[in-house]
Amino acid sequence: MSSIDTLAELLAKLPGIGPRQARRIVYYLLTQNYHTLERIADAIKDLKKETKKCVECGRFFPIHSHANTECTICVNPNRDTSKLMLVEKDVDVEAFEKSGVYDGKYFVLGGTVTLFEKNPKDRLALLPLKKYLEKHGKDLSEFIFALSATPSGEETAAYVFDDLKEVLESLSVSISKLGRGLSTGSELEYADSDTIKNAFERRQ
Amino acid sequence: MSSIDTLAELLAKLPGIGPRQARRIVYYLLTQNYHTLERIADAIKDLKKETKKCVECGRFFPIHSHANTECTICVNPNRDTSKLMLVEKDVDVEAFEKSGVYDGKYFVLGGTVTLFEKNPKDRLALLPLKKYLEKHGKDLSEFIFALSATPSGEETAAYVFDDLKEVLESLSVSISKLGRGLSTGSELEYADSDTIKNAFERRQ
Amino acid sequence: MSSIDTLAELLAKLPGIGPRQARRIVYYLLTQNYHTLERIADAIKDLKKETKKCVECGRFFPIHSHANTECTICVNPNRDTSKLMLVEKDVDVEAFEKSGVYDGKYFVLGGTVTLFEKNPKDRLALLPLKKYLEKHGKDLSEFIFALSATPSGEETAAYVFDDLKEVLESLSVSISKLGRGLSTGSELEYADSDTIKNAFERRQ
Amino acid sequence: MSSIDTLAELLAKLPGIGPRQARRIVYYLLTQNYHTLERIADAIKDLKKETKKCVECGRFFPIHSHANTECTICVNPNRDTSKLMLVEKDVDVEAFEKSGVYDGKYFVLGGTVTLFEKNPKDRLALLPLKKYLEKHGKDLSEFIFALSATPSGEETAAYVFDDLKEVLESLSVSISKLGRGLSTGSELEYADSDTIKNAFERRQ
Repeated sequence: MSSIDTLAELLAKLPGIGPRQARRIVYYLLTQNYHTLERIADAIKDLKKETKKCVECGRFFPIHSHANTECTICVNPNRDTSKLMLVEKDVDVEAFEKSGVYDGKYFVLGGTVTLFEKNPKDRLALLPLKKYLEKHGKDLSEFIFALSATPSGEETAAYVFDDLKEVLESLSVSISKLGRGLSTGSELEYADSDTIKNAFERRQ
Repeated sequence: MSSIDTLAELLAKLPGIGPRQARRIVYYLLTQNYHTLERIADAIKDLKKETKKCVECGRFFPIHSHANTECTICVNPNRDTSKLMLVEKDVDVEAFEKSGVYDGKYFVLGGTVTLFEKNPKDRLALLPLKKYLEKHGKDLSEFIFALSATPSGEETAAYVFDDLKEVLESLSVSISKLGRGLSTGSELEYADSDTIKNAFERRQ
Repeated sequence: MSSIDTLAELLAKLPGIGPRQARRIVYYLLTQNYHTLERIADAIKDLKKETKKCVECGRFFPIHSHANTECTICVNPNRDTSKLMLVEKDVDVEAFEKSGVYDGKYFVLGGTVTLFEKNPKDRLALLPLKKYLEKHGKDLSEFIFALSATPSGEETAAYVFDDLKEVLESLSVSISKLGRGLSTGSELEYADSDTIKNAFERRQ
Repeated sequence: MSSIDTLAELLAKLPGIGPRQARRIVYYLLTQNYHTLERIADAIKDLKKETKKCVECGRFFPIHSHANTECTICVNPNRDTSKLMLVEKDVDVEAFEKSGVYDGKYFVLGGTVTLFEKNPKDRLALLPLKKYLEKHGKDLSEFIFALSATPSGEETAAYVFDDLKEVLESLSVSISKLGRGLSTGSELEYADSDTIKNAFERRQ
C-alpha cells in the first residue's frame, strides 16, 4: 500500500473524518513543505509524552514537571473541594471551564454506556472514581452529575448512580444533576413536550 | 393572470411555502376531484366564521354556541385562575396543553417585538392584557413569562415587563419565567456557555 | 372536529406540508381578514373551473374561451410539430418553457412508475399518448424522452419505450433522451462515477 | 502552549477540520496507545519521502524506485498518449480512474483561479503544462478540459485556454470539455435553466 493510501486509511479512523476527507487532507499535506509535516508529526508523537492523565480526576493535562501527577485543576488550592462534578470527557471539562461558572473539582468518567452493553464497567473509570470518593469523600458536600441530556447520558447517569449508591449514601453529600429547560436559542414552538415540562417545572 | 398563477401567488404568501412549492401544490390540486377542492375552500372560508378570538385570553377557539365569547380554557372551571401564563402565539398554548404540565390560564400576546421597533404596542395585545389583569388580578398569585429563549423572546419579555411593571407591582403576584438549562437531546460538548451556565446554576 | 383541526388536516395532505406547518398556516390565516381568506378559497374553487386538461398533450391550461380544448402551446402555430417531448408533469413543461430552449410540442405523462408496480398503466396517460401519435405521427421526426435522471425516471422511460416500441418503429422518428453530464454547479470531486462517465463520453 | 493546544491548532488548519473537531481528535488520540500515534506520525513524515510529484503530469505518486521520476500512469505503455486531460487536482484523477472511462493521460493544474486574482499563474502549473505540450504535442490529438462545472472551474478553463491558445493552435489537436447535462440523480423539476438547456441541446 502506498504511503498516500496508508495515511488516508489512518486519518479516516479519526473522529468525524470520512474516507473522502481523509484523501483531501493527504493531498493537502503533499502540497505543504516538509517542515510543516514534521511539526504535525512531532506534535502527534509528543502528545502523550508531554501529557499525563491526572491520577485524581482522570483528565489529560500537560506535564510541566515530571514530579506532577495531578492536573492544574486538581493542584489549584482555590478550587472548591466540596463539589465534585462528574463529566463524560475532557472536552466537557473545557466547556465548563470556558463558561466560568464552576469552581469545584471534576471527575472524567471516560465514556458512556448503553442499556444492553455487557461489561460497561470496562469503559468507565468507576474504580478510580470510588478511590477518589474514599480519599476525598469527607470534604465533599455536593456530587453533580453533568452528563448530556441524551439517552446515553441518562443511561450512564443511572448506571453510575446505581454503582455508587452505597458509597454516596455513606457520605453525607447532596446529589444533583444539571438543570433541564430551554436551551439558549430554543423556540417554544419547536420544543418537545419533555423540554416544555422541564422548563415549566423549573420556572424561576 | 391565469387561475393557476393567481392561486400559486396566494399560496406563496403562506408561512413556509415558497413559489416553487406553491406551483407544485396548485398542480397537485388540479389532479384532485372538485369535491376535494371544495372541501379545502370551504374549510378556509368557514375558518373565521366558526372561530372566535377569546375576549379573555386572545386565543382563537371554535365557536360552539354563538353566545360564547370565551374559549374552552377560559370557561373551564377546573383551570387554576391563580396562574397566568403569557405566550406569544396560539401554537405555544397548544405546545403547553400537549405537555399536560400546566393547569392555569394563558394570555396570547400575538407577536414579539424587536429592539428598535417604533410602535411595538401596535402588534402586541397589551391593552387587553391590562384589562385582564384589572379584572382578574385579585385572584392571581403567579404571572409566568413563557416566551422563547431567543433574542426576540427576551426582548419582548423585557418590553412587556417594563410596560406592566406598575400593574404587576400593585398586585401581589410572583413573577416567573420558564427555566433555562439543557434541552432534551442536548450534548454538553455542543452546548453554548450560556446554556451551560444556566444548566449548572439551576442544577437540581 | 373544530374547523381549525379540519383545515389543518386538509392542508397537511398537500405536497410538502407537514402537520406542524399546517397548524402554523391555519393560525396565520386566522390573523388575516375575511377578504384574504375568501380570495384564497375562491382561487381554489375556481382552479378547476377555469382550467382544462389539454385534449392533445394533457397539460392543464387556463380556459379563455369555452370552445378551447387545446392548450396555448398546442394551438400555437409557431411550435415545431416535428418534435414531441415526453415529460412527467406540468412543472417540467414550465421548466423547459422557462429555459427557452425548446420550440416543439410536449406530452404530459402524468406520473412515473416503479419497477414492481402492478398496473402502471393506470397512472400514466399511455392511451392518450398513442392517440396523439396516431393523429400526429406522420409530422413527427423526433421523440424526446425528457424524464428525470433518477431511478424512477429511468424505469418509467424504459416502461414507456417498451409500450410504444411498435408504434414508434412504425413511424420514422428518431428517439432521443436528455443528455447526461455535469449539472451546472457540480464539482468533479463530488461527482459519482456514472456522472463522470457520462460527462467524459459526451465531451464536446 | 501545551502540546494539546499545539496539535489542536495544527489540525484545525487541515481542510474541513474546525477548531472544535480538532480538539475532539486530540483527545481521541490521547486515549490511543503510543504505537497508534507513532504510526500516524510516521505516515505523515514518510508521506513526502515516499511520494514524488511526477515530472510529466504533476500528480503525486508513490516512489517505488528512486530512479522513477514519472508516475504509474505516465510510465504505463497502455495509456493512450494521443489524449491529454487537464484536471484541477489529484483527487480528480482518482475520480476518473475510479470510473474506468478514460485511458489517456492527465495533467494536474494544481488549483483554480478567480476572476480578479492578481497573479493566477503562480498557483497554476502552466509552465510545466507548456513543457509537456512541447515535448508530447506531436502525439496529441485531443486536449480535454476536465474542470468542475462551477464558476471557478469555468474561469480557470477560460484562463488556461487563453494562455495556451497559441500553443494549442500550433498543434493540430481537437479541444473538448466535459459534457454538461443532467447529473445522475437530478430531478428535472429542480434543475436550473442552464442545466436544462445543456441537457436538451446534448440530447442523444
